[in-house]
Amino acid sequence: MILSALLTSVGINLGLCLLFFTLYSILRKQPGNVGVYAPRLVAQGQSQASAEFNLERLLPTAGWVRTAWQPSEEHLLSTLGLDAVVVVRIFIFSLKVFTFAGIVGVFVLIPVNFLGNQLSEDFSDLPNKSLDSFSISNVNVGSNRLWIHFCAAYVFTGVVCYFLYCESLYISSKRIAYFYSCKPQAHQFTVLVRGIPVSPESSCGETVERFFTEYHPSTYLSHTVLRRTSKVQGLISDAEKIRKRLAHLKLSTQSEQRFRRDGFLGIFGRKVDIIDHYERKLGDLEDNLRMEQSSLGKEVPAAFVSFKSRLGAAIALHIPQGVNPTEWVAERAPEPQDVHWPFFSSSFIKIWIFKLVVVVACVSLTILFLIPVLIVQGLTNLEQLETWFPFLESILKLNVVSQVITGYLPSLILHLFLSLVPPIMIFFSSMQGYMSFSQIEKSACTKVLWFTIWNIFFANVLSGSALYQVNIFLEPKKIPKVLAEAVPSQAAFFIAYVVTSGWTSLSSELFRLIPLICSFFKRLFAGKDSNEFDVPSTPYHSVVPRIVFFGLLGVTYFFLAPLILPFLIIYYCMGYIIYRNQLLNVYSSKYETGGKFWPIVHNSMIFSLILMHVIAIGIFGLKKLPLASSLIIPLPILTLLFDQYIRRRFLPIFKAYPVECLVNKDRADENDPAMAEFFDKLVSAYRDPALDPLQYSRNTDGQNAPLLGAAEV
Amino acid sequence: MILSALLTSVGINLGLCLLFFTLYSILRKQPGNVGVYAPRLVAQGQSQASAEFNLERLLPTAGWVRTAWQPSEEHLLSTLGLDAVVVVRIFIFSLKVFTFAGIVGVFVLIPVNFLGNQLSEDFSDLPNKSLDSFSISNVNVGSNRLWIHFCAAYVFTGVVCYFLYCESLYISSKRIAYFYSCKPQAHQFTVLVRGIPVSPESSCGETVERFFTEYHPSTYLSHTVLRRTSKVQGLISDAEKIRKRLAHLKLSTQSEQRFRRDGFLGIFGRKVDIIDHYERKLGDLEDNLRMEQSSLGKEVPAAFVSFKSRLGAAIALHIPQGVNPTEWVAERAPEPQDVHWPFFSSSFIKIWIFKLVVVVACVSLTILFLIPVLIVQGLTNLEQLETWFPFLESILKLNVVSQVITGYLPSLILHLFLSLVPPIMIFFSSMQGYMSFSQIEKSACTKVLWFTIWNIFFANVLSGSALYQVNIFLEPKKIPKVLAEAVPSQAAFFIAYVVTSGWTSLSSELFRLIPLICSFFKRLFAGKDSNEFDVPSTPYHSVVPRIVFFGLLGVTYFFLAPLILPFLIIYYCMGYIIYRNQLLNVYSSKYETGGKFWPIVHNSMIFSLILMHVIAIGIFGLKKLPLASSLIIPLPILTLLFDQYIRRRFLPIFKAYPVECLVNKDRADENDPAMAEFFDKLVSAYRDPALDPLQYSRNTDGQNAPLLGAAEV
Repeated sequence: MILSALLTSVGINLGLCLLFFTLYSILRKQPGNVGVYAPRLVAQGQSQASAEFNLERLLPTAGWVRTAWQPSEEHLLSTLGLDAVVVVRIFIFSLKVFTFAGIVGVFVLIPVNFLGNQLSEDFSDLPNKSLDSFSISNVNVGSNRLWIHFCAAYVFTGVVCYFLYCESLYISSKRIAYFYSCKPQAHQFTVLVRGIPVSPESSCGETVERFFTEYHPSTYLSHTVLRRTSKVQGLISDAEKIRKRLAHLKLSTQSEQRFRRDGFLGIFGRKVDIIDHYERKLGDLEDNLRMEQSSLGKEVPAAFVSFKSRLGAAIALHIPQGVNPTEWVAERAPEPQDVHWPFFSSSFIKIWIFKLVVVVACVSLTILFLIPVLIVQGLTNLEQLETWFPFLESILKLNVVSQVITGYLPSLILHLFLSLVPPIMIFFSSMQGYMSFSQIEKSACTKVLWFTIWNIFFANVLSGSALYQVNIFLEPKKIPKVLAEAVPSQAAFFIAYVVTSGWTSLSSELFRLIPLICSFFKRLFAGKDSNEFDVPSTPYHSVVPRIVFFGLLGVTYFFLAPLILPFLIIYYCMGYIIYRNQLLNVYSSKYETGGKFWPIVHNSMIFSLILMHVIAIGIFGLKKLPLASSLIIPLPILTLLFDQYIRRRFLPIFKAYPVECLVNKDRADENDPAMAEFFDKLVSAYRDPALDPLQYSRNTDGQNAPLLGAAEV
Repeated sequence: MILSALLTSVGINLGLCLLFFTLYSILRKQPGNVGVYAPRLVAQGQSQASAEFNLERLLPTAGWVRTAWQPSEEHLLSTLGLDAVVVVRIFIFSLKVFTFAGIVGVFVLIPVNFLGNQLSEDFSDLPNKSLDSFSISNVNVGSNRLWIHFCAAYVFTGVVCYFLYCESLYISSKRIAYFYSCKPQAHQFTVLVRGIPVSPESSCGETVERFFTEYHPSTYLSHTVLRRTSKVQGLISDAEKIRKRLAHLKLSTQSEQRFRRDGFLGIFGRKVDIIDHYERKLGDLEDNLRMEQSSLGKEVPAAFVSFKSRLGAAIALHIPQGVNPTEWVAERAPEPQDVHWPFFSSSFIKIWIFKLVVVVACVSLTILFLIPVLIVQGLTNLEQLETWFPFLESILKLNVVSQVITGYLPSLILHLFLSLVPPIMIFFSSMQGYMSFSQIEKSACTKVLWFTIWNIFFANVLSGSALYQVNIFLEPKKIPKVLAEAVPSQAAFFIAYVVTSGWTSLSSELFRLIPLICSFFKRLFAGKDSNEFDVPSTPYHSVVPRIVFFGLLGVTYFFLAPLILPFLIIYYCMGYIIYRNQLLNVYSSKYETGGKFWPIVHNSMIFSLILMHVIAIGIFGLKKLPLASSLIIPLPILTLLFDQYIRRRFLPIFKAYPVECLVNKDRADENDPAMAEFFDKLVSAYRDPALDPLQYSRNTDGQNAPLLGAAEV
């Protein structure tokens, strides 16, 4: 790709971003869009959008930037929780890293690269210069200038590690502080016990009661045995559907369409009152449901066991309980609203099979995804496209077309395909038998990240068939050389990728095109009164991998093609503001993991550094500087030692709270008069919502009393 | 190697074994040798050897076999502990596995192999037939008979897994039963806490006291801060040396040699009484020692912390204690007599450096060990030896010489070199900073095992330079093919290895040649009264890897060269009797791990099976049976799944006792009146013996009161 193509791409994307920002600043002020652009505020009753018309509403303003910028981190922490703060911290961390990298890259490495003459020797005609002139490819073979790159790799690794350490320290201390500051929560006092050995003569509940009163006499409080409630859940969702239909019918059809024939396709048979018909149906369903609920469903050999203190729960969690380690297996209980109830409906064997299926599915998805990647590859190599489709030759001759195709289209296609991946991965993770939404999302987050790294980075870099890629990883010795040959040559593509996919994803995140369209059609068809909307939950599983993947690109291309860095810094600056805005206005967390997404960032950063080092080993080899190539080898070793240190120093904090915190917090609670009430509530906190008594009958229309369970299903 | 060479080797070794057995059965009855052949019994006062002379003492008898055979497992468990029982169970397990393998191998696989005609076609001249005629190499390429080997591999894997499951179940249940049956022990109530954050204004002991009374108020009992006592230990060992010298002088020199000159080399200066001289020296040393002991040595930020219940110790052990995970790190305390006190003398940074040094040392040892391996290789290939040393040609022409050289010498050399490895590995492991002898020995056990597998199995099989071997493991795809080509061709060597190294090691284990010689010279020079002797501790680190390595040979050669199996069965039968005998008469355990050596056996067995499968994949590929080659692939996967299951089902029991056991045992103790006394003792159980008050003064000769600390140093 030449410089002018990149500039075209930057121009198009900057234009698009500005357009989206302008549209956003206008649309967000329209009262009708408040459900799209500030659902969180509306749900909290904080939305101040007035319905009155004034001219200011039609003018683009940048006030939202100020509003997003202003709140302090303490404010974010108290209103949004630690997970949201971690997302913001990832941006701050990335900005720190890439500001340093950018300064080194632009003021040291780019001049050094540009002064090389490996690729071409003339300084004229800058716009038509290949982007490779700014990359390490342009440095002469065997040139001593490569030692500057060598030093840059060492210094950069040190700086990244330092920032990683600071950030881990900061977030882990925040996590402890958050634990101390928050009120008593049900999940802190509860563990989920699986593998309860049920004997034929006693029920599961009795077994649990007997075991824990025997072995945890001073701390055991209560338990809730889990039940298979898939049938009840089915009935509830059916009832919910009919209820909605009924409410809609009552509102829209006053009298004219109330009757229809009850026979085949509504054409034959006698005329019936549809509302009456549905009400009867709903009544039957509810009776059925009540009957099912009273039978409680089949017991699953698993239970939520609650304790009188956090330390009591920690003892049950950390120390093996039964003589047989596959029985009485305790794991951390999620928050009650975070429990993924349907999971308990499937048996453990099913979960095992599903786990295998998920592995196969992930592999298949990865292989299938090569198809769009190969198409994108074709677009960047126009010559190849011309040989494939000769009839395109005349069109591709046009300068603008070819620049758009090489500069913009490939990233856009990739971006579209990639946006399908997070929902698929969430679906895969939910099949895997996790018992909470937070775990599902965290697992999906990791899946999406590795999928992205493999399918965007490696598939594009290696650009061969799937078979060829696997072959490389069977011959570890060749990896540095292969990567060193392939990675720099794709620099242009990834610079364009940051500009298109990165910037576009940010503006579309802000603009929320699809919710906007949905809201528009909803208002068009459902009438004015349908102001219902869901507050979307923060999509950590798509946000975190995306931010982190750009970090990987930045780290690997830092000394190969520093031209990528300014664009990355712009991405992170915009992202910082936009995600603060979205977190404050749009999303609301359904759960709080207490910053458990941070280790994913740490792991990915270490992986990126090692990848950079491996490429460096290869590059210095190719550039005939074997001494530099060997001297780089301590760098990955030092990085791994650093990783080990961080793992021992900080990661345990993200897994479990220490005795010190638990005891302090327990002791602080002892004198709290509200604890008695809390324990009363705790006993029933983990009741399956599907077994809650019905909250509406056939005579109320229940508009504002949705079934608790249905929302979770 | 041809059949007659093997038979020569078998003959020589059988003869040697019989000779050793006969000599043993005579020598063990001599009263003077009771310290060599039954030190354990003597130490316990159970030795019944009469000093009277009778004829029976000179006749070889097999009574010891009956004595070793008779005791039941319960008897072994109660007298020797669980670790000794595990050693016996390894033999039983191996016998079960290889009896099955032997039946299949001898009656099914050997005939099938022998009927093939890949190597030669004549059935005559059996003695000169190569051993390869009995191996899979003789089966024709593409022959359908290979499906018999295929089935054998599947059935054998299933049988091994079944036996592994049964044995794991048996040993883990024994472990739990042993825990229930044993008396309260100090280490069950104690944890070792490292990384105590000492502030400048308070001592380490105060910090520990404050922390544990704060966070474990109901269970904390006491603590013992560790101190750097290397100086005291040095003084103690000096004093011990002088004390011994003095005692010897007092006995041997009545008056004539009591005086010597105190000047240069004892020639000049005035005459002094040597005993007086030494006594004065000892007195000075003891004063010095008392002064050092009273200053207590520098505190190490680590302490043994004891609790009032086993559950209390488990809580401190399993749940992270402090907010900083690198502080207050708890680990299981060893038994008081198992503590490796010198360890605490070295700082933690030193231990880190030493860990790296140990890694480097292990690698160097592995590389250096290739030299003897290559010599051995040369001996099995006589032709090569002749080209290296042409002058040997005439000697090597002799039939007997060449048979001895190819059949016996190589294994003997290997055996000699290999016997040096366990002490070296113990030395390496003790540098690594383990805090107990049991951990050192367990770590050395693993080291010796992998060293043996690498240096005996792989180095012999691959028979190339070290570089070449590493290269193979960098190209994982080629491994099956390379192994399939190399492993069967070394069958003859490993059959000879079992016969020579295996059988010889057993008879030398029984005969205890070196202790016998030592004891002989001791009696010769030290006179009659020096009846002191140490009871040797069970050398698990050399015994377990050896038994397990023969298992690996058996498993990998099971379907390649089943001729190895009868010799292995003989090895295990003899080993069973001999080790029972030695455990009952000779060794005494210095510690009790409760069967923690078993997981090493499990891991090695799974590794052997996977290795067998990899070789099978390669062999079927070489024999042009690609279908069988592919159909073997599920086998390692199933084996690994089985391994995962066993790891989840049994291995946690070997790591920690569950709450169920801890609470039951604690509750049983509650009513025990002896517990008050036990807790009194517990407070001082983990006192560094170097700081114990001196037990002798310059006026007693202290013959029977050796310093406690010196024995540990």
